[in-house]
Amino acid sequence: MKLPVSTEWLLHCAASLAQLEAGATASAAQLAQYFDLPAAYLAKQLQALVKAGALAATTGPRGGFRLARPASEITLLQIVEAVDGTSSPYECREIRQQGRGALSAEECQNPCILAEKMAEAHEAWRNSLATTSLAEIIAALPPSAPSRTRLRLTGTP
Amino acid sequence: MKLPVSTEWLLHCAASLAQLEAGATASAAQLAQYFDLPAAYLAKQLQALVKAGALAATTGPRGGFRLARPASEITLLQIVEAVDGTSSPYECREIRQQGRGALSAEECQNPCILAEKMAEAHEAWRNSLATTSLAEIIAALPPSAPSRTRLRLTGTP
Repeated sequence: MKLPVSTEWLLHCAASLAQLEAGATASAAQLAQYFDLPAAYLAKQLQALVKAGALAATTGPRGGFRLARPASEITLLQIVEAVDGTSSPYECREIRQQGRGALSAEECQNPCILAEKMAEAHEAWRNSLATTSLAEIIAALPPSAPSRTRLRLTGTP
Repeated sequence: MKLPVSTEWLLHCAASLAQLEAGATASAAQLAQYFDLPAAYLAKQLQALVKAGALAATTGPRGGFRLARPASEITLLQIVEAVDGTSSPYECREIRQQGRGALSAEECQNPCILAEKMAEAHEAWRNSLATTSLAEIIAALPPSAPSRTRLRLTGTP
């Protein structure tokens, strides 16, 4: 099971946008140059984060992307699920209802215990990512990081 | 991120083998018929569980598969990782070291905080699956399940 390579891109882009001054934006092209990433594909992924409510996009000559909410209210889970979707990695196709050992529909009114345990593990993963916000990520960076990020990303410290 | 479809197959096969009498085995063909699965591909996956130490394979006319250890000592994690491998779904390609925003190698002696948080989430998933053994799965089945499983899987109740 693999997350898309772009998961790393969008986590870093969101963490970079979290270091801008209030109201400031960075364009997809600026973010692509900052990390040396393919601009068109990155722009598409940034729109997915807009759709998910993590980023806001502004148009016009000074348009670009910024956080849609305070960094303390945007979690790693929201970003990862905006990129990869929300479905569980485990797929239960109800093989307990097929073949020589098939259980009847009546016997399968409760979910399969194996599917339940796999769902619990997915919830543990989700909960772990839901407890970390972008604000916590920024707080873990060296104090000099935000002004450096702003200067290299937007040209304004 | 998706686990292989065969993850469900092998979890159910291992749970079925856990219901056999001590020393009894079931062949790949019997397991394939029991769940209506492709026998050749299932046999290959069963060998992956042998390699992982969860199942034992015996040869000869009455040969087949059985648990390699007590059901209480085989976890869902061991089965899932035998099928899908142990690597984390998140891949950190160190984009923090590339592009206009590149950090120097000296600045990257510590792991990236984002990669660390993604690794923590993967550990939460692993820990969840490591806390459930096949014995617990069997204990959650109706009391009539094991004799029914044995009869339909091997012809011997």
